[in-house]
Amino acid sequence: MRQNPARRAALLDAAIEVLAREGSRGLTLRAVDKEAGVPIGTASNYFNSRDTLLTQAGARVYERLIPDEATLAQMAPTGDIDTVVELLKETVNRVSSFRTGYLALLELRLEATRRPELREVLTKRVRTDMDENVARHLASGLPGDATSVQLLQLALSWLILEQLTLPDIFTAEERDKLVTEAVIRLAGDRVL
Amino acid sequence: MRQNPARRAALLDAAIEVLAREGSRGLTLRAVDKEAGVPIGTASNYFNSRDTLLTQAGARVYERLIPDEATLAQMAPTGDIDTVVELLKETVNRVSSFRTGYLALLELRLEATRRPELREVLTKRVRTDMDENVARHLASGLPGDATSVQLLQLALSWLILEQLTLPDIFTAEERDKLVTEAVIRLAGDRVL
Repeated sequence: MRQNPARRAALLDAAIEVLAREGSRGLTLRAVDKEAGVPIGTASNYFNSRDTLLTQAGARVYERLIPDEATLAQMAPTGDIDTVVELLKETVNRVSSFRTGYLALLELRLEATRRPELREVLTKRVRTDMDENVARHLASGLPGDATSVQLLQLALSWLILEQLTLPDIFTAEERDKLVTEAVIRLAGDRVL
Repeated sequence: MRQNPARRAALLDAAIEVLAREGSRGLTLRAVDKEAGVPIGTASNYFNSRDTLLTQAGARVYERLIPDEATLAQMAPTGDIDTVVELLKETVNRVSSFRTGYLALLELRLEATRRPELREVLTKRVRTDMDENVARHLASGLPGDATSVQLLQLALSWLILEQLTLPDIFTAEERDKLVTEAVIRLAGDRVL
């Protein structure tokens, strides 16, 4: 297998675009070559099977969703619930703005119902992500317990799904209100 | 177009199974004929296009998810938050147990990102469903306001998605705890 990291990343980014646009059934090694604008056969030099491509594309979405340094710095504890509200509004906007990445993850979840190996990889990734969110939150001293973090993650995950698949269900104002109220009700009166 | 209602329903039920198993790309009129065990060409006598089949399959899932009379009777107001908890545990279990229906709706949501007509039909259906849930809840006298109902619907929708696509993320016990805490925190201290 070839190992040029930048080329590998570019192929996975192409796979994400194909997944979001064509669905998991449309994701083939040749479709990735075409999307990435590279000679036919390139992707097969990097991924030994479609399964490998699917699981690595999922990992790549998570990699691209990691907040940048400036955003992480804003996560510093202040003990103020307004901080949590602003942080989560930013998170919802950041994740939603990587539209194809989120849609690709949903395609992968549905494909995981048919592929035990993919299901295992995604389960580990989602659980790690949730555990890290809980640990970071508890360490921050911000209001809310582990259940608050889990319930917020559930509600906001579906809010993003709603926005990306049926964007006319909620207005931007209604979405902001739902994020604010979710934080106040789920975390607010527990610690403050 | 043919109009035998029982035959039409059986074809739509077959479409739901195909959607859940093969994804939206696998849904063709011929695949529905095969799944339903009827002569090739039958589905095309009932649905003039694949678009019609997709939108009617979505409507059929909602039709099958409507609670039965006994469950609706349990929704009678008692002013007790435990009633809401039990009701929502039942709802999560009822929706989850129609596994192929829920997965089919997710496939349709992803397909809706590519088909404006399907998006419009699903938007109306989801909004009506949410408005009805809010109205029923407010009329019941049970604790919680419109925002409580919307946030509960968001959180529990993702909880069901999690259970159906990555079933090892939460245990049954953790799911029950999340439903209970969601109700207490989102609705509990507002009215009680």
